[in-house]
Amino acid sequence: MYRLVVDLYPICRSITGDGLRASLRRLQQEAPLTIHEVPSGTQVLDWTIPNEWNVRDAWVANSRGERVIDFRRSNLHVLNYSTPIRCTMSLAELRPHLYTIPEHPDWVPYRTSYYKEDWGFCLEHRRLESLPEDRYEVVIDSTLAPGVLNYGEYVLRGATAEEVLISCHCCHPSLANDNLSGMAMAVTLAQTLARSTMRYTYRFLFVPGAIGSIAWLATHDEVVPRIRHGLVLSCVGDRGPFTYKRSRRAEAVVDRAVAHVLRHADVAHRLIDFVPYGYDERQYCSPGYNLPVGCFMRTPHGRYPEYHTSADNLDLVCPKALAASLDILIQVVALLEGNALLVNTNPKGEPQLGRRGLYGSVGGAAQLPGFESALLWVLNYADGRHTLLDIADRAEMAFPAIRQAADALLGVGLLAPAATDTPATGGALKASR
Amino acid sequence: MYRLVVDLYPICRSITGDGLRASLRRLQQEAPLTIHEVPSGTQVLDWTIPNEWNVRDAWVANSRGERVIDFRRSNLHVLNYSTPIRCTMSLAELRPHLYTIPEHPDWVPYRTSYYKEDWGFCLEHRRLESLPEDRYEVVIDSTLAPGVLNYGEYVLRGATAEEVLISCHCCHPSLANDNLSGMAMAVTLAQTLARSTMRYTYRFLFVPGAIGSIAWLATHDEVVPRIRHGLVLSCVGDRGPFTYKRSRRAEAVVDRAVAHVLRHADVAHRLIDFVPYGYDERQYCSPGYNLPVGCFMRTPHGRYPEYHTSADNLDLVCPKALAASLDILIQVVALLEGNALLVNTNPKGEPQLGRRGLYGSVGGAAQLPGFESALLWVLNYADGRHTLLDIADRAEMAFPAIRQAADALLGVGLLAPAATDTPATGGALKASR
Amino acid sequence: MYRLVVDLYPICRSITGDGLRASLRRLQQEAPLTIHEVPSGTQVLDWTIPNEWNVRDAWVANSRGERVIDFRRSNLHVLNYSTPIRCTMSLAELRPHLYTIPEHPDWVPYRTSYYKEDWGFCLEHRRLESLPEDRYEVVIDSTLAPGVLNYGEYVLRGATAEEVLISCHCCHPSLANDNLSGMAMAVTLAQTLARSTMRYTYRFLFVPGAIGSIAWLATHDEVVPRIRHGLVLSCVGDRGPFTYKRSRRAEAVVDRAVAHVLRHADVAHRLIDFVPYGYDERQYCSPGYNLPVGCFMRTPHGRYPEYHTSADNLDLVCPKALAASLDILIQVVALLEGNALLVNTNPKGEPQLGRRGLYGSVGGAAQLPGFESALLWVLNYADGRHTLLDIADRAEMAFPAIRQAADALLGVGLLAPAATDTPATGGALKASR
Repeated sequence: MYRLVVDLYPICRSITGDGLRASLRRLQQEAPLTIHEVPSGTQVLDWTIPNEWNVRDAWVANSRGERVIDFRRSNLHVLNYSTPIRCTMSLAELRPHLYTIPEHPDWVPYRTSYYKEDWGFCLEHRRLESLPEDRYEVVIDSTLAPGVLNYGEYVLRGATAEEVLISCHCCHPSLANDNLSGMAMAVTLAQTLARSTMRYTYRFLFVPGAIGSIAWLATHDEVVPRIRHGLVLSCVGDRGPFTYKRSRRAEAVVDRAVAHVLRHADVAHRLIDFVPYGYDERQYCSPGYNLPVGCFMRTPHGRYPEYHTSADNLDLVCPKALAASLDILIQVVALLEGNALLVNTNPKGEPQLGRRGLYGSVGGAAQLPGFESALLWVLNYADGRHTLLDIADRAEMAFPAIRQAADALLGVGLLAPAATDTPATGGALKASR
Repeated sequence: MYRLVVDLYPICRSITGDGLRASLRRLQQEAPLTIHEVPSGTQVLDWTIPNEWNVRDAWVANSRGERVIDFRRSNLHVLNYSTPIRCTMSLAELRPHLYTIPEHPDWVPYRTSYYKEDWGFCLEHRRLESLPEDRYEVVIDSTLAPGVLNYGEYVLRGATAEEVLISCHCCHPSLANDNLSGMAMAVTLAQTLARSTMRYTYRFLFVPGAIGSIAWLATHDEVVPRIRHGLVLSCVGDRGPFTYKRSRRAEAVVDRAVAHVLRHADVAHRLIDFVPYGYDERQYCSPGYNLPVGCFMRTPHGRYPEYHTSADNLDLVCPKALAASLDILIQVVALLEGNALLVNTNPKGEPQLGRRGLYGSVGGAAQLPGFESALLWVLNYADGRHTLLDIADRAEMAFPAIRQAADALLGVGLLAPAATDTPATGGALKASR
Repeated sequence: MYRLVVDLYPICRSITGDGLRASLRRLQQEAPLTIHEVPSGTQVLDWTIPNEWNVRDAWVANSRGERVIDFRRSNLHVLNYSTPIRCTMSLAELRPHLYTIPEHPDWVPYRTSYYKEDWGFCLEHRRLESLPEDRYEVVIDSTLAPGVLNYGEYVLRGATAEEVLISCHCCHPSLANDNLSGMAMAVTLAQTLARSTMRYTYRFLFVPGAIGSIAWLATHDEVVPRIRHGLVLSCVGDRGPFTYKRSRRAEAVVDRAVAHVLRHADVAHRLIDFVPYGYDERQYCSPGYNLPVGCFMRTPHGRYPEYHTSADNLDLVCPKALAASLDILIQVVALLEGNALLVNTNPKGEPQLGRRGLYGSVGGAAQLPGFESALLWVLNYADGRHTLLDIADRAEMAFPAIRQAADALLGVGLLAPAATDTPATGGALKASR
């Protein structure tokens, strides 16, 4: 994954344009994702696909012709979506178009102006302060013209049409943790799942933030109702503890699944409630959709100083952190796949497990072995109202132990699938907040 | 308000009689309240309006003719509702009719005997202990005879017939915090609201405790169902922190509104659950009514040593405390007036706020401005299930910020009033405990 | 009760056989319980009644004929339900049939093999280590043959057919706290209740663990739906704090009743949630029954080192602890008997308690007397949705005070039984988790 982050890092991405396309093509080397295009001007929900933006070069040069700000050094230097400009001006005239971070004078901020035509440069505050009064040549060799918006999509068909949505944004230029870590994670998870037979269909989306997920939502009315669980991935490569932001439903199965895995993985983590700001969960969890989609992160956006600056670079992302994030996600998927509503076929009294070879023959010990304990928990709570996840949470046992017990009980006919896979009265699950 | 407390302080009030009438007339100088009368003997719910009580003078004099207890010095000296008496007796005979507070030997207690014919005197414990054996002249020049019970009522018509009830008791003699502070507060709030156009109709009641609210309830069956919110005001003038006693419903809108205002006002306060003892909320929250009426206080009845004694005097009440209490109440009224169930008209995905001038054009900053954040909260939760108060609580933002965002969204048509103003499933609101 | 424990202690009990019968007959001297028998081979739910086991003697003797393990010294020495054996073998051959507790080298463990034919001995670990290589004579003079399973039942008819189930296990050999304390407690409670007129019918079961309650459940389909409350009693004689394990319903009335009594008794105690392991509550709370049956203990099974060892002897059980446990149980029964759904017949405003002699005539004191306070709580919450237990919990008053107030109000007609004794919407009660 880190290799992929390294490869993608230099590309100048935006919500449209060549950089985005190049990035998606690089991902195609990892998984056979489809690259969709939506023409500029298309109406998508309340939004309109903007013109396509491309930039070849951009600089500010002093009167001696020296580039004091140079796009070739970092693609963050240009205000993303800057309109073309080529003229000469005083520092005072240039000044309102320059963005810096006074608190971090050596970092270049990342700024955008997607939906209002404007131009500008982002630079180190220290450099700005060292700029003398002069006549500056200001050049942005960009185009903003009708074209397309692209997004990548990869659908891994499972046994059922019910879907799990994995979404990440891929519209940021050279920012490693915010955007690239999520893209690398999503495509690697896709590779991993492609090697297994899955119950759910998994849909991976690689979209420009906001406009991309909105474009997808606008054109997939038939898919939306099939989404059972979803995760937005972002900022999964830094060394911080895990952060899971719950879906707007707050107690969706995916919310409880991630919480369960993090708790039993015994890793530092924080669960936070939904707020209507962040990544594309903003769109998926808008009230007209209210999808069960949470956001899986390490340090959240805006909470690390390097966020949206040139310091969100390849040093901030760490291969070990990426691997640990993937491991959690794989456990979450395993839980979603393995969760089920099963029913005790012998609900009156305990069944005699001993004669079925599931219970030790010598009694009297103070402690019950974990496997036998799991059997009793499953039998007692498999009443049509508790899923296996409900039972695992109630028993305070890790999901795999409960699933293993359920498999043993299915094997001897003491458990059977419920007529419906939806708990009659919800158990610990609530439909919405 | 303090001026009004000072004016009312010397009057000898009771649940009936001249003092009560004089007090209500003094309030009429502030707001045009109607003074109602209910004749003695009238059946009101389970109660009967008692005879009217008036007292001109009362004393205990020693054998030298010196008044050792003198009504003219403090109207607390006479047991409220004492029947007339004029006779001479020994200290031993007098003793069972004398009330003191041994723990506070210099204070005179306030005691009553409304519903059982009796007579007595209240005095300083120190004075009682200094009384020598003697023949005492005991005189209570009172009358207890058919008359009327009075209460004041002031109705401020709003745009709707739905009502907010503000009630205070006005039956205590010279007690400043308990009774006078609430009366002054209620009438001043009425003056303030009279200057605005209101959505709700506000009904201010100035009633003798228990029997007064019972008399009002007994005769206003057609008003009761229109009461949406209510507050009993008492003990709002001392220097203690605010105390809000929730209605019996516990999560009525008024309960959540007061809690919200106190929390965001960043003042010391305490929220307590309903108990069936206290002021007239006992009647409004009796199970046959169960009205959403809480009780707003500073230090609650029975919780300050001066309660129901001569030390609940003009020193205990402080103009600044009165002003701060009024300020909280005005904010509560503003919240009740501004709360609404509004619905996002564009619930699928976020609407594009930028093109409506509601969102900054340059993106990328780590923090969203508060106004834009409020817009997102309102849009996301205006789903027909959350009122603006629900949204403010969920967002942990002060109500005015949420209301301001809602107004902006109403202005551009992104929000509309819900078909019904009652949340479909209640949001955070529950009908009753 | 301690006397009874002493009498029962030496008997070698098992889930069937002479020892169990002798124990039940000893209990018949205390209360007229019926001893039922179920023949071997009978199908009961998922189980089959096993053959009856009896043991006359058992030993391991060394080559000098000295008994190194001797059933006559402690009936724990034989693996309960051991098949007969008579042969000579080396220590190595014998070794897999010997059970010890290395951590407590001087205690003999209690082990069983009810459902798999096997034989074995339990002994002190220290003794095992001292056994030299030798030829050992191994004798278990037992029989395992068709017979019956017995259990005791005592039904104390009350005014209604609704039942309270009190169940204890009586299948353990010389274990004093685990098994004997519960048996002594149940029979003494039965004696106590037999002296009163009860509203509920009380059914006391003295059953071999698991198979006994299963046999009873299998044959009492008509009784099961009448069980309103139930308690399993076990380990009630040690000096540890009380432990109450809630029923699977978690908020059944019995769960709240025991919690209420323990809280107000001001004794050290712990409330734990249901787990599907323990005593016969495992059967009563299996999902096909889900009865409101909790388990009342002091130190729970498996949580004291002496559990299932020879150290669970007459020293572990203490007469004072038994008496205190009985006292709690009697209070729980009193609460269950006294709990009711009563309705305020005058729900609009407070009724005038003074004219009914229920309220002091002199008003004004800061504190309301406890009895008057209880009256107000009952009147306010007797709304058809709160039982007296709900009211006591809401008022944070001990149940007897609330019941006393309710009786006074019933006496003056201010309270009446609800048309149905089931709260309309449950109040604080929830049907199930």
